[in-house]
Amino acid sequence: MRAIILTIGDELTGGHTIDTNSSYLAGRIGEQGIRVSRLETVGDDVKVIARQIEIALGDADLVFVTGGLGPTSDDITKEAVALATGRKMVIDPGLRAQLEARFKRYKSATPAVVDSLASIPENSEIIENRAGAAAGFSIEHGDARIFVMPGVPHEMEAVFVHGILPILRRLPRSEVTITRVLKTTGMSESTIAGKLEPVIDEIEAGLGYLPRPGGVELRLTARGSEDRVMRILSESTRIITAALGERVYSPEGEDIHFVVGRMLIDRGVTIAVAESCTGGLIGHLLTQVPGISAVFDRAIVAYSNSAKTDSLDVPAALIEEHGAVSPEVAEAMARGVRERAGTDIGLSTTGIAGPGGGTEEKPVGLVYFGLAGLEGSETGRMVFRGSREIVKLKAAVHGLDLVRCHLLGRGL
Amino acid sequence: MRAIILTIGDELTGGHTIDTNSSYLAGRIGEQGIRVSRLETVGDDVKVIARQIEIALGDADLVFVTGGLGPTSDDITKEAVALATGRKMVIDPGLRAQLEARFKRYKSATPAVVDSLASIPENSEIIENRAGAAAGFSIEHGDARIFVMPGVPHEMEAVFVHGILPILRRLPRSEVTITRVLKTTGMSESTIAGKLEPVIDEIEAGLGYLPRPGGVELRLTARGSEDRVMRILSESTRIITAALGERVYSPEGEDIHFVVGRMLIDRGVTIAVAESCTGGLIGHLLTQVPGISAVFDRAIVAYSNSAKTDSLDVPAALIEEHGAVSPEVAEAMARGVRERAGTDIGLSTTGIAGPGGGTEEKPVGLVYFGLAGLEGSETGRMVFRGSREIVKLKAAVHGLDLVRCHLLGRGL
Repeated sequence: MRAIILTIGDELTGGHTIDTNSSYLAGRIGEQGIRVSRLETVGDDVKVIARQIEIALGDADLVFVTGGLGPTSDDITKEAVALATGRKMVIDPGLRAQLEARFKRYKSATPAVVDSLASIPENSEIIENRAGAAAGFSIEHGDARIFVMPGVPHEMEAVFVHGILPILRRLPRSEVTITRVLKTTGMSESTIAGKLEPVIDEIEAGLGYLPRPGGVELRLTARGSEDRVMRILSESTRIITAALGERVYSPEGEDIHFVVGRMLIDRGVTIAVAESCTGGLIGHLLTQVPGISAVFDRAIVAYSNSAKTDSLDVPAALIEEHGAVSPEVAEAMARGVRERAGTDIGLSTTGIAGPGGGTEEKPVGLVYFGLAGLEGSETGRMVFRGSREIVKLKAAVHGLDLVRCHLLGRGL
Repeated sequence: MRAIILTIGDELTGGHTIDTNSSYLAGRIGEQGIRVSRLETVGDDVKVIARQIEIALGDADLVFVTGGLGPTSDDITKEAVALATGRKMVIDPGLRAQLEARFKRYKSATPAVVDSLASIPENSEIIENRAGAAAGFSIEHGDARIFVMPGVPHEMEAVFVHGILPILRRLPRSEVTITRVLKTTGMSESTIAGKLEPVIDEIEAGLGYLPRPGGVELRLTARGSEDRVMRILSESTRIITAALGERVYSPEGEDIHFVVGRMLIDRGVTIAVAESCTGGLIGHLLTQVPGISAVFDRAIVAYSNSAKTDSLDVPAALIEEHGAVSPEVAEAMARGVRERAGTDIGLSTTGIAGPGGGTEEKPVGLVYFGLAGLEGSETGRMVFRGSREIVKLKAAVHGLDLVRCHLLGRGL
């Protein structure tokens, strides 16, 4: 069972928008054991879209299309699907009635807009869109089947989850291909390869390395019957986590802020953060976690020296003597925020995110970390490579990992 | 002149990684007036890659490939290019010598790794990689030309900017297609369409609407000689900004934090932020702007009520009386952070990001804003739709826009 995903829009081929629909769909379709063989993106050109749909219907069993279902002139995907599958466009009376009811409520659409939204290739199966006006639809064509969804991400997700996923779950299949992602931090690709060397022959799953700003992701892939695949994946995961120890922070591909956030919530450990070079990113990441308010008290983004002194009680003399980017100031920030917030843990960052501000002694990318806990406080030092954005991201991940290690009882 | 971008990696077709290379390249190539007709992604399968390269070389004048150039077993792009263009793989002696010198310094590669990295299809032109070990390369094939780059984003960018962009700039071309993005916030698609109605016939450029979490992006596209295109784009931009006024925050596709950050820096206006529901995101966005430390003093992410009281001087009685999510508390937060930091402006957010915590009176997505300045303070109220992440993002953009409007002298 092979799938192709086709996303449509001039904003994608023009590089103005990063395509997140492809990645979402590839992940969800892959989870069903269906192999995604190709992702494609084309602009708003009806002939080009029709041609790529025809090719895709020849190459794959399932074709997933997103984008271009709205009522404006650049929304031409439905015509392209009709062209590619040799169908006429018709106005669906049921869909039209629904749309009329919807727009009566909102008082916001002309009859032409309603007709345009209610037009679909004949004999399509309509798929409800609970999040917007543009319905999805599906067509069987030869041995293949095409699913068409809107391009706005939350509408695409609504159509996919409620209308398409149930169909995929019912598809018969003898063989599945499943990939599991293990996330690590704090070790390079070659260090990991060295540690896995002695056990590499025991790892039955296919193994891929993917270096990312916050650490290396390991991708384990297995193909076969579902039982066999699940057994291989869990056995391979066990072998790898035994070899790499706590450097694997998630065997399920989760981001570190969700892992750390849930550890804090589950253990009832409260935290406050004092950020300088990360500029609020650690606070932002922790507050992505639903329910974090039970344990996250505050983050003080103390960018200026006076902010460090008067909002974190870092002595001005300490900054004067060692500089704001120093282990001494990192430690004082962590202690200060913990003290002020009355939390179990205080975490701090201070460094030089760049692109300017570096010196020979304190280069761009240098970051000091402080972690204050019940038994005292510790500091760490890292030099990260990359742009301002990358340095901030790496520093935030490292800081969160320090909290994780602290909770695991290892200290810094 | 038509281009196709092909990105390679099982992590992409598996949905484990969002492909940002395609979007980056599409944008940069499009800026050169070259039309990107298709983006494609395939997994690590040498035959599939070779086939798609062959098809792309038939369909386009320029083919850009990223990913799969490293020394590990899943790095097979070079073999695929050799297969597609009918060339043998050879070890390039100059490249090998460079790699040996590089690895001598780092003491970290076996001879097999060096040979693998130095192998390229014969008669390729090598393109230096200043950011890593895997060099790029280029091949002329019939009337088309293929450029191959590593997949790690900062290495891809280094190879593209230093080695490929200069070649693209020298290409002869009679006609260019250029798209300009105007970013707006605070108006819906249909409101914008209504305001543009009276002048729509004067807008010579093609006009596309793209709704995004922080506002609607307008895409203007023109084709023709470079002179003509530039004239059409600037005239169309002038007409649209005249019709929409200050709701256009960037006529050059810039994100709002860069626009606001630079306004603050240019005018020497200092700012401090008090965040509750945005959780540090406003601080994070502002600190993405190089040089912001001259004007950004601090962000206090006061998640708990006690943090609001003791780090922002919000009276406990005020929270008791009105609740933490209220205009009164938003105003007190903005005043408090401005006072404490001694800045010109204080900005605050307090709201319910969800998914839990909403009530009938105060639903998920409700956010209050406070802005304190020299002449006093004001508050605003919005209800945003979407996930926790989307609500945070919309609230951060809206908060930054309040600062922009304040600086433009309009108040809230």
